[in-house]
Amino acid sequence: MPKADRRRRAPDPFCESEVRARLERLRDELKRRRLDGLLVSSVAGVRYLSGFSGEDTLALVTRRGQYLITDFRFKEEAALSAPLFRTLIHKRGLMGMAEKTARRLRLKRLGYQENVVTAAGLGALKGGKRLVPVGLMVDRLRAVKSPAEVAVLRTAVRAAERGLRAARRGLRPGASERSAAAELRYRLVKTGGAQDQAFETIVAEGPRGSLPHARPTERPIRRNSVVLIDWGARCGFYHSDLTRVVALGRIPRTYGRLVGIVRKAQLAAMERIRPGARFRDVDGAAREVIAKAGYKGRFGHALGHGLGLEVHEFPRVGPRSEGKLESGMVFTVEPGIYLPGRFGVRLEDDVLVTETGCEVLSSLPHDARLAGD
Amino acid sequence: MPKADRRRRAPDPFCESEVRARLERLRDELKRRRLDGLLVSSVAGVRYLSGFSGEDTLALVTRRGQYLITDFRFKEEAALSAPLFRTLIHKRGLMGMAEKTARRLRLKRLGYQENVVTAAGLGALKGGKRLVPVGLMVDRLRAVKSPAEVAVLRTAVRAAERGLRAARRGLRPGASERSAAAELRYRLVKTGGAQDQAFETIVAEGPRGSLPHARPTERPIRRNSVVLIDWGARCGFYHSDLTRVVALGRIPRTYGRLVGIVRKAQLAAMERIRPGARFRDVDGAAREVIAKAGYKGRFGHALGHGLGLEVHEFPRVGPRSEGKLESGMVFTVEPGIYLPGRFGVRLEDDVLVTETGCEVLSSLPHDARLAGD
Repeated sequence: MPKADRRRRAPDPFCESEVRARLERLRDELKRRRLDGLLVSSVAGVRYLSGFSGEDTLALVTRRGQYLITDFRFKEEAALSAPLFRTLIHKRGLMGMAEKTARRLRLKRLGYQENVVTAAGLGALKGGKRLVPVGLMVDRLRAVKSPAEVAVLRTAVRAAERGLRAARRGLRPGASERSAAAELRYRLVKTGGAQDQAFETIVAEGPRGSLPHARPTERPIRRNSVVLIDWGARCGFYHSDLTRVVALGRIPRTYGRLVGIVRKAQLAAMERIRPGARFRDVDGAAREVIAKAGYKGRFGHALGHGLGLEVHEFPRVGPRSEGKLESGMVFTVEPGIYLPGRFGVRLEDDVLVTETGCEVLSSLPHDARLAGD
Repeated sequence: MPKADRRRRAPDPFCESEVRARLERLRDELKRRRLDGLLVSSVAGVRYLSGFSGEDTLALVTRRGQYLITDFRFKEEAALSAPLFRTLIHKRGLMGMAEKTARRLRLKRLGYQENVVTAAGLGALKGGKRLVPVGLMVDRLRAVKSPAEVAVLRTAVRAAERGLRAARRGLRPGASERSAAAELRYRLVKTGGAQDQAFETIVAEGPRGSLPHARPTERPIRRNSVVLIDWGARCGFYHSDLTRVVALGRIPRTYGRLVGIVRKAQLAAMERIRPGARFRDVDGAAREVIAKAGYKGRFGHALGHGLGLEVHEFPRVGPRSEGKLESGMVFTVEPGIYLPGRFGVRLEDDVLVTETGCEVLSSLPHDARLAGD
């Protein structure tokens, strides 16, 4: 059946060859650090390295083998989603089982994620071996995306954009922030095709847009006001994250000017993006535009953060971040200007670092009305 | 204006008198354990003790004072939502700031939540004082609900029920699990008045209902099949959690029988609920009904879990749980029978332990079709 054979398959970032390549990269790191194994505790880390789609589960990767430690609820799911891993079912404690397994495998130097493992968990892991904190080792592996991962991230960006376009019509004076957010979340799935929203959708009207973490309230959206929307979609476990500001009715003059400055800051940052560029320089390019326009101190957060199996992951791209961009990293570029008591303007797009520069994955217009208005 | 004065105010579980009462109960515990202070790290614990509505924040409660340690993003929110706490803004590390503050206050014995604090966090907290793990100390305080908390939990149950009734019409053969879940989530907010869904809504058709943690898929709902729906609403930060099974079209004979058995198991457990009853005996009452009906081993999880600021919180009501019910506890009663490859039946209701027995907070019918069908 040639027709079916030629059909383009959706890329699967958890197919066997992807998982094998990830394990190989991890084992190179284990060798470099003279570790006999690594206990992976973060949900995203376990998913990345094994394909496993559940929670409450640990991955133990040694120089030669790989194990999932889980409970009976996930037995079937582990076999289906992580076929390269051997599944061990614990009954009375994940960490106790990890300790027992490490002892049985005679691991002398075992790495662990000290930013994820709890104090009690570390206590249960101790005994007869050297425990070595590995910091962001797995996070750094995850930061550089494969083509299959980029393809899924593109899908997540597209789903978010479709969702906003569909929900845009319902954004009318009189609707509450909360009901506008519910509408958008619904459209992300129904029209956009997302698994779910990537995080709790932010719809913040007027002065509430100046709070960096506004939660939608019963506040009604007023005529001639400005609404900040920060939203994203989750597709195949990968996340997009976008922000736009929408003016309803008459556009306040200051507002139009701020959108122009923030957009300029975004473009200045994007100009700097290429393999080898320092995180802090990319952040600095945007920050400089905003400071020069007279809004120094009104952009109080980092320029961006990595996107992938988590909505916020390595790298952080901020004024004090250490490190450099690598080809394949995907992160947000989201400068903003916040005028407390009046409103906030933030524009957020998702970008991929290419061999020579940067590709912007998102394509919604940045003007005050959004397309179709 | 007498009329306005007589208007019934919505109960606020974070009003000043509630927060003061909680702090007092916590301080009694501190005295009992000879602690100079407690560092609270869990999001729900911080919210419960302070009213603070954000994240990434610690609460430090000493014998005399109380502090929130947060960053600039939450400065305004902290002042608004946690007025009894003094806010300390950290720049380069929450735990470092907690350590510094504990030193400044000369705390000699400081409690910490070893099941929440990370290994790295504990490392940063060390120096010049005795650190004492407190286990579930805050979780146990949270387990007994005040009347204001119960009132909000009732609202959350009602929102979930209204949402399901509204979404029930859209549950037709041909719709996918995912789109049915999106519809229900939307209705929870729009019709039910919830802040959001309490957790990722489960809609599992046919054999997928036998997986304890099914995630909605693109699988279409078939005619003459059985759909398991596990959903809840979040209202004012408190969560409800319900499960029903709905038959579409012709009802399979086994299915009707299983619903009857599970319902009988539920009622048997509820019979046992009163202050002083052991968790394991309540679980056992339901388990016995299922075993006697010939389905021993087909009910593979605990009977229930506490509900409140978290969807799963203390107590766990399972066959090996230690401890006894207290008046004011709110938890789920959710026995099930799972037939792999065929379907699963689970009924879940939310109950309050009263002075003399149990009050069932939820009221949706348990029959195979649900009301209004």
